[in-house]
Amino acid sequence: MNNIILAYNVNKGKTFLEHLKGKKPLFACVIGVTETAKIPGISAAGKNPELTYYTPSADVELLLFGKCKCISGVPVTPEGIPTPALITRAALKLADIPAIVISGGLKIKPQIPFIELGGSPGRDIRTGNAVDNVEEVVERAKVVGENLAKTVDYLVVGESIPGGTTTALGVLLAMGIDAEGKVSSSMPNNPHELKIETVKAGLRAAGIEFGTLAKDPLRAIACVGDPMMPAFTGLVIGAADKVPVLMAGGTQMSAILAIIKALNPEILDNTAIGTTKWILSDGKADLAGIVAQVADVPVLAINLDFSHSKFEGLKAYEAGAVKEGVGAGGACIAAILKSACSISTNALLLEIEKAYSQLMHSDKR
Amino acid sequence: MNNIILAYNVNKGKTFLEHLKGKKPLFACVIGVTETAKIPGISAAGKNPELTYYTPSADVELLLFGKCKCISGVPVTPEGIPTPALITRAALKLADIPAIVISGGLKIKPQIPFIELGGSPGRDIRTGNAVDNVEEVVERAKVVGENLAKTVDYLVVGESIPGGTTTALGVLLAMGIDAEGKVSSSMPNNPHELKIETVKAGLRAAGIEFGTLAKDPLRAIACVGDPMMPAFTGLVIGAADKVPVLMAGGTQMSAILAIIKALNPEILDNTAIGTTKWILSDGKADLAGIVAQVADVPVLAINLDFSHSKFEGLKAYEAGAVKEGVGAGGACIAAILKSACSISTNALLLEIEKAYSQLMHSDKR
Repeated sequence: MNNIILAYNVNKGKTFLEHLKGKKPLFACVIGVTETAKIPGISAAGKNPELTYYTPSADVELLLFGKCKCISGVPVTPEGIPTPALITRAALKLADIPAIVISGGLKIKPQIPFIELGGSPGRDIRTGNAVDNVEEVVERAKVVGENLAKTVDYLVVGESIPGGTTTALGVLLAMGIDAEGKVSSSMPNNPHELKIETVKAGLRAAGIEFGTLAKDPLRAIACVGDPMMPAFTGLVIGAADKVPVLMAGGTQMSAILAIIKALNPEILDNTAIGTTKWILSDGKADLAGIVAQVADVPVLAINLDFSHSKFEGLKAYEAGAVKEGVGAGGACIAAILKSACSISTNALLLEIEKAYSQLMHSDKR
Repeated sequence: MNNIILAYNVNKGKTFLEHLKGKKPLFACVIGVTETAKIPGISAAGKNPELTYYTPSADVELLLFGKCKCISGVPVTPEGIPTPALITRAALKLADIPAIVISGGLKIKPQIPFIELGGSPGRDIRTGNAVDNVEEVVERAKVVGENLAKTVDYLVVGESIPGGTTTALGVLLAMGIDAEGKVSSSMPNNPHELKIETVKAGLRAAGIEFGTLAKDPLRAIACVGDPMMPAFTGLVIGAADKVPVLMAGGTQMSAILAIIKALNPEILDNTAIGTTKWILSDGKADLAGIVAQVADVPVLAINLDFSHSKFEGLKAYEAGAVKEGVGAGGACIAAILKSACSISTNALLLEIEKAYSQLMHSDKR
């Protein structure tokens, strides 16, 4: 497993990986949208802020169906760098891993099957009143997690929500975790100032301060979080009681970790974070630095290398564009584990390039 | 497996059962509504025709959550006989079988997680234009079936849609299968005349005759079917290519069989129908008589006996009330198979009675 980096909590991470080798996973992708992503300059998960409402739905259409339906081509950043859903799709396809999509709250419904939990799109966190129905969505997602845990050996849970690192920062600060300047970004130039300012406006509007909601994570989500969070949290809590769960994502996962620690700390022993090398090498973020404040959970990362790709859009990942999303890192880790290491990161790159060249021919946005 | 009756195609049925013994199933419940159920006297799947819109959602709430949310108590017939969801719930609980809910088209959304396929509620089949978006829903359901088939050893698929035997008759006649007087009913007195009259009005309105749509099952659904059908069909087609599928239901399953035979006959070898003894002993219906016209698929039935139940509402099943629904028969068969026969039909009855007495205390409808 040379291609999987043990980035934090090395020994626990090694045990986690050994335990899952050759086992049967299910990949679940939790999607949602928040008006926070429409703040200019905050998210690159869409060609422009208006298109961020389409990104999660287009991502999961690509994931389950092999191409997007609600947009032409694939989601791209303003610079034209393609979505990490391409990576996730390639990993699941090569390792024949089943996938399921779960909505936490959307504006644009994907034209593929998805699990509805009764959640709504998130409001701009500067309102201090970002997410409705948090507790109910957590409860429904728990039921999904409990049931899915009876079908496979472990779960890999990814997410797609533009603006998600800002809402993660919101929840982390509301819960008293020092995350300023530590959350990642889909842009090479992480707009930390803008994120902090946005979160502080939300905390002020909600009448809370750093740490006020350390013991009330559901209220932290309701005030300054996003609708992906209650769905993701419930899913992990429901499943990790029975099977291991690989939480697939970047610094947003540290917010989920904090939420779970406040609700069900005992299940954290059955979890790990799975991400990409590009999150680790991001000098403008500090995933391990946040995780270390929360829980003793391993951080694993797939060592993908796009520097020799024939596509500039993929090479850009090496320069810090996109980095992670749609559970790309975790899906690659699961593909390697399921294949008992017979799938290489090079095979992944070739599969990604194949899909990319096919899909970009139809890109007319 | 004394408690499972080999009702039709005995040898194939025996092989099917032997093959699944001790294996790991997933139960999927496909729900939908049709305005056809509002024709007075056509359905007993609700206290009155208006309540039939609530029945499927209440059924799956009971299934996943242990009690109904969108109504108090549980769905009952006009005579107060409770839903077979009680049987399904007991079977899944005793054998620890995971469940998932899939909507084909609803008026009242269940307050539990469910898979959305983009379908709509069905219109009265007398319009001859009963179901929208049939092909798209089949395609989306296929994706679900393909993915779920990678998680477990086999699928059990049940349904809940009031008015479903009338729409089944519609599709069967449109496809040229002699089913007049052969479909079952949730009432002891099967209103065959009313059903036939309803279907004939639908066929007339659609400008079709007996057998016109033998090779166009999707149009048969669109004209005189219901929104459960495309979802159920796609799910079976997607899954049965890879794993066995037990189609859990009564005479409605013969319509699904006919649809699948016209679309993907090669997968029928990987299917069986699982139902209840009460469907077999229904002198006013003929499941085997319909199946025999369609395909060489086994019919299996659970030999539940409620004649000594302490509850009149359950005893009424022995007099021909309800009979089947929510995949009750197939869920019991799967429970017995999964437990390698350690779960008895008596244990099932005790579990059903326990749940029934708890739930009826809150019945205030």
